[in-house]
Amino acid sequence: MQQPLSERYKITRQRTLALANPLSEADMQIQAADFASPGKWHLAHTTWFFEEFILKPLGMKSRFAEPYRFLFNSYYETVGERQPQNKRGFISRPSLNEILNYRNEVDAKLLNAFERGMDDDLLDLVELGIHHEQQHQELFLTDIVFNLFQNPLHPAYLDIANSDPLEKEEGATFMKGFDGGLVSIGHDSPDFCFDNERPSHRYFLEPFKLSNRLITNAEWLEFIEDGGYRNPILWLSDGWKIARNEGWRMPLYWLVDEGYFAYGLYGVQPLDGSAPVSNISFFEADAFARWAGKRLPTEFEWEFSARQNEATDAVEDTDRLIQPLRLASNRNLKQLHGHVWQWTASPYVAYPGFKVNPGSVGEYNGKFMNGQYVLRGSSFATPPFHDRVSYRNFFYPHQRWQFAGLRLAE
Amino acid sequence: MQQPLSERYKITRQRTLALANPLSEADMQIQAADFASPGKWHLAHTTWFFEEFILKPLGMKSRFAEPYRFLFNSYYETVGERQPQNKRGFISRPSLNEILNYRNEVDAKLLNAFERGMDDDLLDLVELGIHHEQQHQELFLTDIVFNLFQNPLHPAYLDIANSDPLEKEEGATFMKGFDGGLVSIGHDSPDFCFDNERPSHRYFLEPFKLSNRLITNAEWLEFIEDGGYRNPILWLSDGWKIARNEGWRMPLYWLVDEGYFAYGLYGVQPLDGSAPVSNISFFEADAFARWAGKRLPTEFEWEFSARQNEATDAVEDTDRLIQPLRLASNRNLKQLHGHVWQWTASPYVAYPGFKVNPGSVGEYNGKFMNGQYVLRGSSFATPPFHDRVSYRNFFYPHQRWQFAGLRLAE
Amino acid sequence: MQQPLSERYKITRQRTLALANPLSEADMQIQAADFASPGKWHLAHTTWFFEEFILKPLGMKSRFAEPYRFLFNSYYETVGERQPQNKRGFISRPSLNEILNYRNEVDAKLLNAFERGMDDDLLDLVELGIHHEQQHQELFLTDIVFNLFQNPLHPAYLDIANSDPLEKEEGATFMKGFDGGLVSIGHDSPDFCFDNERPSHRYFLEPFKLSNRLITNAEWLEFIEDGGYRNPILWLSDGWKIARNEGWRMPLYWLVDEGYFAYGLYGVQPLDGSAPVSNISFFEADAFARWAGKRLPTEFEWEFSARQNEATDAVEDTDRLIQPLRLASNRNLKQLHGHVWQWTASPYVAYPGFKVNPGSVGEYNGKFMNGQYVLRGSSFATPPFHDRVSYRNFFYPHQRWQFAGLRLAE
Amino acid sequence: MQQPLSERYKITRQRTLALANPLSEADMQIQAADFASPGKWHLAHTTWFFEEFILKPLGMKSRFAEPYRFLFNSYYETVGERQPQNKRGFISRPSLNEILNYRNEVDAKLLNAFERGMDDDLLDLVELGIHHEQQHQELFLTDIVFNLFQNPLHPAYLDIANSDPLEKEEGATFMKGFDGGLVSIGHDSPDFCFDNERPSHRYFLEPFKLSNRLITNAEWLEFIEDGGYRNPILWLSDGWKIARNEGWRMPLYWLVDEGYFAYGLYGVQPLDGSAPVSNISFFEADAFARWAGKRLPTEFEWEFSARQNEATDAVEDTDRLIQPLRLASNRNLKQLHGHVWQWTASPYVAYPGFKVNPGSVGEYNGKFMNGQYVLRGSSFATPPFHDRVSYRNFFYPHQRWQFAGLRLAE
Repeated sequence: MQQPLSERYKITRQRTLALANPLSEADMQIQAADFASPGKWHLAHTTWFFEEFILKPLGMKSRFAEPYRFLFNSYYETVGERQPQNKRGFISRPSLNEILNYRNEVDAKLLNAFERGMDDDLLDLVELGIHHEQQHQELFLTDIVFNLFQNPLHPAYLDIANSDPLEKEEGATFMKGFDGGLVSIGHDSPDFCFDNERPSHRYFLEPFKLSNRLITNAEWLEFIEDGGYRNPILWLSDGWKIARNEGWRMPLYWLVDEGYFAYGLYGVQPLDGSAPVSNISFFEADAFARWAGKRLPTEFEWEFSARQNEATDAVEDTDRLIQPLRLASNRNLKQLHGHVWQWTASPYVAYPGFKVNPGSVGEYNGKFMNGQYVLRGSSFATPPFHDRVSYRNFFYPHQRWQFAGLRLAE
Repeated sequence: MQQPLSERYKITRQRTLALANPLSEADMQIQAADFASPGKWHLAHTTWFFEEFILKPLGMKSRFAEPYRFLFNSYYETVGERQPQNKRGFISRPSLNEILNYRNEVDAKLLNAFERGMDDDLLDLVELGIHHEQQHQELFLTDIVFNLFQNPLHPAYLDIANSDPLEKEEGATFMKGFDGGLVSIGHDSPDFCFDNERPSHRYFLEPFKLSNRLITNAEWLEFIEDGGYRNPILWLSDGWKIARNEGWRMPLYWLVDEGYFAYGLYGVQPLDGSAPVSNISFFEADAFARWAGKRLPTEFEWEFSARQNEATDAVEDTDRLIQPLRLASNRNLKQLHGHVWQWTASPYVAYPGFKVNPGSVGEYNGKFMNGQYVLRGSSFATPPFHDRVSYRNFFYPHQRWQFAGLRLAE
Repeated sequence: MQQPLSERYKITRQRTLALANPLSEADMQIQAADFASPGKWHLAHTTWFFEEFILKPLGMKSRFAEPYRFLFNSYYETVGERQPQNKRGFISRPSLNEILNYRNEVDAKLLNAFERGMDDDLLDLVELGIHHEQQHQELFLTDIVFNLFQNPLHPAYLDIANSDPLEKEEGATFMKGFDGGLVSIGHDSPDFCFDNERPSHRYFLEPFKLSNRLITNAEWLEFIEDGGYRNPILWLSDGWKIARNEGWRMPLYWLVDEGYFAYGLYGVQPLDGSAPVSNISFFEADAFARWAGKRLPTEFEWEFSARQNEATDAVEDTDRLIQPLRLASNRNLKQLHGHVWQWTASPYVAYPGFKVNPGSVGEYNGKFMNGQYVLRGSSFATPPFHDRVSYRNFFYPHQRWQFAGLRLAE
Repeated sequence: MQQPLSERYKITRQRTLALANPLSEADMQIQAADFASPGKWHLAHTTWFFEEFILKPLGMKSRFAEPYRFLFNSYYETVGERQPQNKRGFISRPSLNEILNYRNEVDAKLLNAFERGMDDDLLDLVELGIHHEQQHQELFLTDIVFNLFQNPLHPAYLDIANSDPLEKEEGATFMKGFDGGLVSIGHDSPDFCFDNERPSHRYFLEPFKLSNRLITNAEWLEFIEDGGYRNPILWLSDGWKIARNEGWRMPLYWLVDEGYFAYGLYGVQPLDGSAPVSNISFFEADAFARWAGKRLPTEFEWEFSARQNEATDAVEDTDRLIQPLRLASNRNLKQLHGHVWQWTASPYVAYPGFKVNPGSVGEYNGKFMNGQYVLRGSSFATPPFHDRVSYRNFFYPHQRWQFAGLRLAE
């Protein structure tokens, strides 16, 4: 049973601050690539969303509204001009303190609006804003890991001493068969979902098999040692080009120095062979699958089989940041959620009958439906209560800074 | 009733030379962009294909085999290193004469092989080589138009005085409805097709409507005049970026000078409002459809409806280069073939159960299944007997140098 | 009479901290272009210089020596690999506090070394280190102005309310004649100078004239309004290319909004027509001179005439940062020092007989003697006691972020 | 005693055609880099120069004048817009035949003008046009060698069988001393020279020494084998960057394959250790000199010593293309002219009192006086009667496609 919206608003807003807690203002200032926004920007942008789409229509905008409308708009053309994405890291002022003041003022006004009451359209936008902020909580982590990784000292976001020991993967590995047929895909309940998960529609699936678990670091090492990064026949043409141009030889955050290491939230740690491989591109995942004599699943296969799985073995939804990489206990498909996002073979396009939301938030998902691939599931960095079986994450096939791995199909 | 393979081989090889006839060696030397190969290269590469995949296995390779293996391999990694794609225009030697000698020698050897007899696998590769050469016949034309267009004098490939007058479009314009359902998609006969058209499989289609004809230049002009190129809300995000960076304001070959003109095989001609719009990118086609309150069809909708159409109204298959843009006489869906390729909303991916061909020709299609969109139908530049209802052409969404337009769906 | 070296060391080190005082750590984290290093980096790099070249030979290196050797080396190949210049802004850790600790520890060790006594070679390197730090004090200011300028809010480094009113330029403007002849150029006393100012040598000068003062903002406005930025005939070919590619229409920090404004240490202020124009490239200075029917002086003309000037009218050497743009009171050549650097027509090359210093500091100047132009004088941002009549500053002809203007010759 | 101008015009025009003789139209169509213009373009551009600057003022322009004004203008802003430099290779039409017709028509008109008589200003421009065409004769060769080199077959411009055997270098190698003093630099006779060689002026030279001959391939090999391309300390900073980015390991046209080879007019030939090294950049020449414990001479040192040399030992001026690399017989400074251009340490800037020519030809030299270095002497590709002791050639320090080597100084 979900909590009231105002309560969830408060929890979400506080969780964002908790994520920022281990970092200095300087840590949150840096932006090492166009796509890796500064932490300060995430704190401000999520607040701007509530200001722009809730407070402004209510005539309750904050003292900061005017300059921040330009500074912290991400990509909403209907809202107006904005700071270029690749220059977000140059905004040292407002300071972190000013941004925290901004958050406080917007929170106070929004809670005031809750008390006064809002109409359903606005409440829907608050709901969207909460899920939007959750997405940025995850991006906050993926971005800070990427940004700190550029530092040759490889500083850690969290101290490994404070992490829980991992549960170990156990049990057999197998390909589980599914019959397919004319199945139902997409979100089909009145609960919240993003517009790109709708409408629920019929899709015809041939019979298929899906691996019961994610590909591990140990398996990826076999791919490397078998020349996977040197054999063009395994790769899509576009993937081979970028892999050569950028000198890819292993996942983004792996390091070699008398043994393999991986960088992450806890800094540089020895590579855990039993953990799911992470921070690979679609191109790498696709090449791995071809090397293994298999293929990536479509998003339809993933969703259909995950729905069947849910019926038999639910995953407990805890705050995975505290317990990263904990393995699901089910004996069915494992690691569907909460470990790493899973690349699918499906380009990110509209479902039949897709409609964008009215107003500026119509720019939320639809205009990005080109050139990207769908990822399914969720990662250890995904906030609790955020992901769904119909959830469609999406990134470009060359992007590697997400906590993304793969599961095989055939 | 098709002619014997050896006869079709000869006809195809001769048609390529006929296409080269109006051009000088210098015209066929230039390469104005990575993707627009020189005419000389097309003449040599199509020959290399037969040498590499037929003559070499037969131990009959030509005198030219060794250096040309490097020079005229396009992208076959399994064949070996090759001249970089963006430097094909720098190969002034071999001369055109030497390339024609190369063609003659390979033709003589291949006809000799026909006489001696070849096993079925090799005959299949000859068949593939013929279709491959037909594809390059079309590319020869699209590339030469692009390359000559860079010349500020805008020289013509053919003299307009020698062209036939166009038949004019007549009759009503309407959206034709289709029921959909669980339909069969892909090539399902023993005749030749490319590997990407297989396997035939089931696909579930919701009911849809398709425009009975292509969008015209006159309709595109309305889009321009209504600010279509200035309104970001109509565009996909990636499309808007490239449209702004490259200053798109009209189709690639349109020119403005006291009225609109269009460049093509016959040089610069006054814009024909009733002709299908051509040389637009997917991004532009998609923006137009959104502006028109409609959408692009999927490749599945296109194929399903075209199959129904064929049953009632066949298109005569003449050499369209001689009679460009002639309109089909049917009262059903018109202009399915032989006018301009039609962008679909479908990313170019493998059909369920797709298998690449064995050997090097396995690199033919599969490795390009990323980031591109399917185009259906064919254009006036497509050779006779080349296209099929299941044919899947594919280009990147920003590419504009193809003779490509659109048909609307809803 | 100069103070003892150890005293000057302390003063210089403290002045750097004073310059950092108005800024937050976030302000000092950002790097908006390759050439505009973060403030934190300047604080650390100047310290690294003393550690690397004084403390290490003495066996007194600090706790921070090892990782900082990589992080804060600028361009010394003989010292080893280093953080790429364009990624200095990604080093959020060490924090500002850690860098201040680093400064303190190095200072303590160096003062201890003073007490113990150092040989002459090391004392010469300390002297070099002081002048090196003064150069970075100036770069600290030019860089922070550039970095803060990228923020659309245009925040100020200092509050204009705390600035002194400017003395106004008075008296006639004229071209002062000089006879030239076989003159002496370069540093000719035992006092400190950089290696590029040596050796003193003979140079033959034809008679020339030099403007008695710098070109003002008001004069630059005339150049703009006469189409100076639109007329290729005024420009060097390389300059015209970059001016068009980058859309130059006025000096780097000018802004137009119902009148002209200029950005600087005090934020955005109305343009002062009587102040020297600043933040122009060599290409712009050269085009202006051609427009004015004159030319830029050579560095030899500048030095020769400035030496003559010094004999008759000395400039008081105060801390110009506190009193920017104060005009010299002489009735001879004015504004030689302390206003803006002055582009000369002289490419930056070695003097006849030039020898680099021994050891790693031989990389200080010599390896940059290509493609740059000499600037003479000094700017309001130049530290007191830093500049000399023989001082040779140098930048690339397209660079605009220096406080650089011009004086005409004929 | 020089021939009459009209005779020299004819000889020059015919020599250009003779240079084109060994090439096909396709060879002369290709442009493998911005700076390496197609042969056809050189044939047309040199003709355009006479049309634009002689025939047009006389009201005698050719039938081709209008479109070619745009196509074949190189960089004259005062003449108008023009085909972009990097797209000269895309002009397949006009054909070679049309360009030859253009040459014939302009020649006929110009010889007609000679008969009618021209005023002195026009005769001066004809003289300039002849020297201009000679410069393009040399560029024709440097460009065609570069363009053909991109072909992996490395085709030859000329057949080595038709070349003369080389005279061999003999006699001692030594550094010859010069006193210097206040010397005269620049062209000082009424004969033709380019504007950049004027005015003759005084320059003060310290005593110096100059190597009596050019650096050979064998010496360059020692530099390579001693790690010259791997040691940053030998290089200017800008040079080291480009050498690493582009992977320089030897001169541009050297090839390694069980021994060293060099590409040139005669295709790929075994490296001749006694021939002057060629096709190196300024950066490489400068690094070599530093490695050798010496330096490059200034252009002033070069000119002064070459003038002294001329007084004692004249070089016979034959058509060096027929006899490349023939050694001068003098026992003084050797190889001053006719072997390879010689990089100097002097940036290319205006002489004191430099004035550009009036009219459009004022754009000839002055606007390029930035970022380039002066080369002195001439190469085997320089036309007879073209070079002078005061001649100033100039290229950017990273450019390697010229026939340029070096001579040492100290």
